[in-house]
Amino acid sequence: MKTKEELPDCPVATTVQLIGSKWKLLILRNLLVRPWRFNELRKNLEGISQKVLTDSLRSMEEDGIITRTVYAEVPPRVEYALSELGESMRPIIKSMEDFGLSYKSISEG
Amino acid sequence: MKTKEELPDCPVATTVQLIGSKWKLLILRNLLVRPWRFNELRKNLEGISQKVLTDSLRSMEEDGIITRTVYAEVPPRVEYALSELGESMRPIIKSMEDFGLSYKSISEG
Repeated sequence: MKTKEELPDCPVATTVQLIGSKWKLLILRNLLVRPWRFNELRKNLEGISQKVLTDSLRSMEEDGIITRTVYAEVPPRVEYALSELGESMRPIIKSMEDFGLSYKSISEG
Repeated sequence: MKTKEELPDCPVATTVQLIGSKWKLLILRNLLVRPWRFNELRKNLEGISQKVLTDSLRSMEEDGIITRTVYAEVPPRVEYALSELGESMRPIIKSMEDFGLSYKSISEG
């Protein structure tokens, strides 16, 4: 997790610092459903590069939002899941879902 | 506003397409309080370039989230405000604020 000194004063800016990117928001959306493997995420997130996915997952892990578990299988299985802290972000994605549904219902065509 | 064909199937991805960037989220945060002028926003959003601010505001205007009003003064005053649609994004920023407060309260230091 980040220390208090590394965080902006504004609580909205704090959250933006943690998940304020297109890809992190979509990773969070996926992990709210179940744990995912790296390659699954890569296939699901159309257009993401391996580097950006790696960097996003690493930074979310460092910030305490997700966990990375390596299962001793052959080949080793690596799964990403939400931590309790990440799980507590559910209302953010829920409110984005609600807005998206409403926006789609009023958009033309 | 975007047409249905331009929007992803997933409602979360729809919202991410509209405001899934650090700067758009912070602009939205500011405009939820009151209308802002361009230069005010530029000063408040530390590190944003004139181009990124211009592009972000224009795309939010095209998506129907904000309005741009020019007042016939000398020099002309241009104000950005939330549309009704933008105002309906308040729960997203509120949930980010709630999370940020909680994250700051448990972070070390």
